[in-house]
Amino acid sequence: MALSVDTFFLNPEAQGTLQAQIQELIAAGILSGRFGVGDKLPSSRKLAKHLGVSRITVTLAYTELVANDYLSARGRSGYFVSDSAPVPPSYAPAPQHLRDSADQLDWQRHLTRSFTGGDTPRKPQDWRSYRYPFIYGQADETLFDHANWRLCALRALGQKDFAAMTGDYFDQDDPLLLEYISRHTLPRRGILARPEEILITLGAQNALWLTSELLLNRNRKAAIEDPCYYTLRDQLAHRRCKLDIIPVDDAGLPPDQIGDDTDVIFTTPSHQSPTTVTMPMARRKALLARARDIGAVVVEDDYEFEMSFGAAPSPALKSIDADGRVIYLGSFSKSLFPGLRLGYLVGSEAFIRQARALRANVLRHPPGHIQRTVAYFLSLGHYDAQIRRTARVLQERREVLEDAIAKHGLTKVRLGKHGASGGSSLWMEGPAHLDMGPVARSLRSKGVFIEPGAPFFSAPHQPLHYYRLGYSSIPASRIPAGIALLAEALRDAGD
Amino acid sequence: MALSVDTFFLNPEAQGTLQAQIQELIAAGILSGRFGVGDKLPSSRKLAKHLGVSRITVTLAYTELVANDYLSARGRSGYFVSDSAPVPPSYAPAPQHLRDSADQLDWQRHLTRSFTGGDTPRKPQDWRSYRYPFIYGQADETLFDHANWRLCALRALGQKDFAAMTGDYFDQDDPLLLEYISRHTLPRRGILARPEEILITLGAQNALWLTSELLLNRNRKAAIEDPCYYTLRDQLAHRRCKLDIIPVDDAGLPPDQIGDDTDVIFTTPSHQSPTTVTMPMARRKALLARARDIGAVVVEDDYEFEMSFGAAPSPALKSIDADGRVIYLGSFSKSLFPGLRLGYLVGSEAFIRQARALRANVLRHPPGHIQRTVAYFLSLGHYDAQIRRTARVLQERREVLEDAIAKHGLTKVRLGKHGASGGSSLWMEGPAHLDMGPVARSLRSKGVFIEPGAPFFSAPHQPLHYYRLGYSSIPASRIPAGIALLAEALRDAGD
Repeated sequence: MALSVDTFFLNPEAQGTLQAQIQELIAAGILSGRFGVGDKLPSSRKLAKHLGVSRITVTLAYTELVANDYLSARGRSGYFVSDSAPVPPSYAPAPQHLRDSADQLDWQRHLTRSFTGGDTPRKPQDWRSYRYPFIYGQADETLFDHANWRLCALRALGQKDFAAMTGDYFDQDDPLLLEYISRHTLPRRGILARPEEILITLGAQNALWLTSELLLNRNRKAAIEDPCYYTLRDQLAHRRCKLDIIPVDDAGLPPDQIGDDTDVIFTTPSHQSPTTVTMPMARRKALLARARDIGAVVVEDDYEFEMSFGAAPSPALKSIDADGRVIYLGSFSKSLFPGLRLGYLVGSEAFIRQARALRANVLRHPPGHIQRTVAYFLSLGHYDAQIRRTARVLQERREVLEDAIAKHGLTKVRLGKHGASGGSSLWMEGPAHLDMGPVARSLRSKGVFIEPGAPFFSAPHQPLHYYRLGYSSIPASRIPAGIALLAEALRDAGD
Repeated sequence: MALSVDTFFLNPEAQGTLQAQIQELIAAGILSGRFGVGDKLPSSRKLAKHLGVSRITVTLAYTELVANDYLSARGRSGYFVSDSAPVPPSYAPAPQHLRDSADQLDWQRHLTRSFTGGDTPRKPQDWRSYRYPFIYGQADETLFDHANWRLCALRALGQKDFAAMTGDYFDQDDPLLLEYISRHTLPRRGILARPEEILITLGAQNALWLTSELLLNRNRKAAIEDPCYYTLRDQLAHRRCKLDIIPVDDAGLPPDQIGDDTDVIFTTPSHQSPTTVTMPMARRKALLARARDIGAVVVEDDYEFEMSFGAAPSPALKSIDADGRVIYLGSFSKSLFPGLRLGYLVGSEAFIRQARALRANVLRHPPGHIQRTVAYFLSLGHYDAQIRRTARVLQERREVLEDAIAKHGLTKVRLGKHGASGGSSLWMEGPAHLDMGPVARSLRSKGVFIEPGAPFFSAPHQPLHYYRLGYSSIPASRIPAGIALLAEALRDAGD
C-alpha cells in the first residue's frame, strides 16, 4: 500500500533537528504497526512539500532509515518499509510523546455516572467456535436465506433507490417498510395500526430504551416480571425509577400482584422471557383490566412471536387493547438476524410522535439501506418462507432436545398447560442448591455453552440453579452429545 | 397477492353472528386499504379452520360479500377482492371498533417530558424536487461511487462475512473498521489512537448525544459556540445543563470568553459550524491551555474535514492534545452519505469504555453489515478516490457560487484570513433588519431552497438576516440561475 502523505505530521512541540523528527515519525509509524512491511513511502519531493521542509532533509532521513533497516530503496521506484524492519508485537501503541502524557484526566470526576458493570452478562464473541452452542438469540447461517437477502440488498442498492438509501430522513422512516409492517406484519398479530402509529427502532432493545426514557423517571414505578430480560433491568436502573418486581407463575405475569402505584407494566405475554410460558387469554384480559384500574401503561415485548410452532400464535395483547394503553415492541432480530438491528414500536400516535422526536435527538433514524432491504425481503415473500423454514427446523431441534433431556433425566421447568410451545429456548432447572454459574464455566472447556439463569432474576434473591438452553444456533445432530456432556457435568457437580 | 389466513382474527368482544363478524372483518380490511384489489382470499376451508367456525359460515359470508361487490368469485380459483370494491381514499384507518376507542389515555400525564418542538428546523424530504437545492449535508448521487459501493456491500454480504454481518456484537464493533480508522483515517488528522480509544456511533449526532449524556447534567455547564449546530442545542436542552453561549469571531471560538465554571467545551475548529471559519493554530493552543486551566473537557466536532480543498486540512485539535482532554467526533455522513448513519468517537480509554457501555444500553451496536461495507470501501481505496473527486467538484461549484454572489452583490460573511477554504457551504448575510425566514419560504415556490440562519443562534438574541448556502447537492450549472432568483427575492424584500 502507498502511504498517503496526508498522514505525516510534524509535532510542533518536538525537540531535535527536522531530519531527526522525520526519522522518528517514520520509525514510530513502523513500530506502532501503522506502516506495514512493503508499504511505499511518499516521494521525498512530496513529503518535503507537505511538511514544508527542504527535500534534502527528507532524503537524508530516508537514507538514514535505510541504513537502520527500517526502509529499503528500490531504485527509481522509491522507498518501502523494509522486509526486515523491526516488527511490532501486535498493533497497539501511539508514539511515546503522546502516549505517556495522555489521559491525565480524572474521568471519574468528569463522568456524571457510570454505565459499565450492569447486570447484562457478557456472552462470548467466539460462540461459533463452541461445538455445542446452546446460545440464545444468535443467527444460524444454515437457516438464513442468504441468496434472496443478497438480491434484496442489491435491489436496495440500485440507482432507483439511491435517495431512499443515502438520504437523511431526519426523523422519518422508510415509507415502504412502515407500510409493509402496518399492512402485513402487524395484522398477523391481530394489530391494526396506521403508519403514524409505528416507529422503526434500532432493534427491540432500542425500542425498550426509548419507551423507558419517555415514560419513567425517579418518581415513577415500573412493574417487571421476575425472572426477566436482564438488559431491561439495566435500562430501568439508569432511569432510576422505582421497581415492582413480580414473580411470574405458570401463566406469566399475575395481574393481581401489580401494585396500585405502578405507572408502567413490562410484560412478555407471547413467550415470557426467559421462561417461555404463554399468557392465556383470560389473564390477558385481566391484565388489561388491572392496568386500566390503576391507570398504567402496558409495554408488550413480542420479541419472538414468529417462532411459534406446535400451536398457532395467540393474538398480541395489543390486539385486544381497546383504549390505546398498550405499547407493542416487535423485532426482526430473531427471525432475520440480530446484527440487523431493526425493530419497531407500535402505540398511540401521541406516544409515537414523542418517541420519534426522542429517536431523532439520539440517532436520527436507522440506516436507510437496511430499512429498504428488509422492506423488499418482506414484500417479496422471502420473510414468510424463511419463518416457515426456521420454524420447521426449530421444531425438529426442540423434539431432539426434549428427548435428550428426558433421556438424561434433566428437569424442564413446569410451565402449566400453556407453556413451552414454540420459541427457541428451554428454561431449565438444575438440582436445588446447585449454582449453575460454575457448571456453565466448566462446560465451556468441553465446548458446551449454556446460559446460567441467575442474571435473569432481580437481586437480592437470585436463585442460582436455573439455566437456559437455546437451540436456534445448534444443529439437531449435535444436541444429544451436548446434553450428555451437560448431564455429566450436573452429576459431577452433585457429587 | 394471496392474503394470509394468519391475518384474520375475530374480535372476542364483537357483537353479532359469526357470519356477520366475518363479513365485517373482510369489509374493514378492504375499506382500510389493507386488502387491495385482486388480492386472493383464503379458501373457505382454511379460513374456517383458522377461525374455528364451520365452513358454511365462511361460505355464506363470502357469498354475501360477492353480492355486495366487495369480492368476486372466479370459478374454482376462489374469491378475490373485486375490481369494483369500495376504494379507500388512501391507506389509513383501522376498523372502527378499535379506532373509536383508541387513545383514551392522557399522554401528557404519562410522558415524563416532551421531546417535540425543539430548535431543529424541519428540512423538506422532497428537496430533490427543487431545481435549486442549496441544501446542506445531503448526498449527491452524481458524485457517489455507486459501483464500488455495491461491490463492497456485496462482499460484506458474502458467506465469508456472514458472522460479521449477522451476529450480535453486544457492545463491540467490527474490528476491521476500528482498525482501519485507527491506522489510516485518524492519522490523516494527526491523531494516533488505539482501537480501544475508538467507538463507532450511529452518525456524528449519536456521538454528540453519547458525549453529552456522559458528561453533562443539570449541575454542569457546557460552553457552546454561537451560532452553532442547532441539534447540539436541542440535545443539551434535554440534558438540562447550564449553557455558556459564546459568540464566535473571525478565528472561531475565543478561549478567553469561556467562563471558569465550564465543564465541557463544544467546538468545531476545522470548519466552524455554520460560519465555516477555521481556527488558527495559535488559538487552538490557547483553547487547550484555557481548558486545562479550568479543568474542562473539549469536544471537537470534526464533521467535514475531508471536504478541504483550496488548502490542506489543518491537523485536528485532538492531535495536539497532550493530556487526553479532547474528545474527537468524526463522521462519514458528509463524505459518503448521511443515510449511512455512521460516525465515531475518539477519546481516552476510560471515557470510550463508558460511551461503549451507554451505547450498548441504548442500541447495542451499529448494524454489522454497514460497518463491514464501510471497512471494505475504505480499505480498498475507494473512499480516498471519492473524497478527491468530491473535493474537485465542490471546488468548482464553490468558484461558480462565489462568482454568482459577487455578480449580484450578495454578502458573504467576512471570516478573516482563515475562513472559508473548503467545506460545502457558505455563510451569508442578508440586508440588516431583513428576516430571511419569509424570504426562504417565498423562494421555495420558485424552486430555490436556502436555509435561514436564525435557528443556528441561541435565543433570545437570534439575528434574522443570516442564511446558509449549501452546494453539496446542486450542480454547478444551476448555481447562477438559483443565485439570480435569490438576489431578486432579496431586492423585492428590500423594497
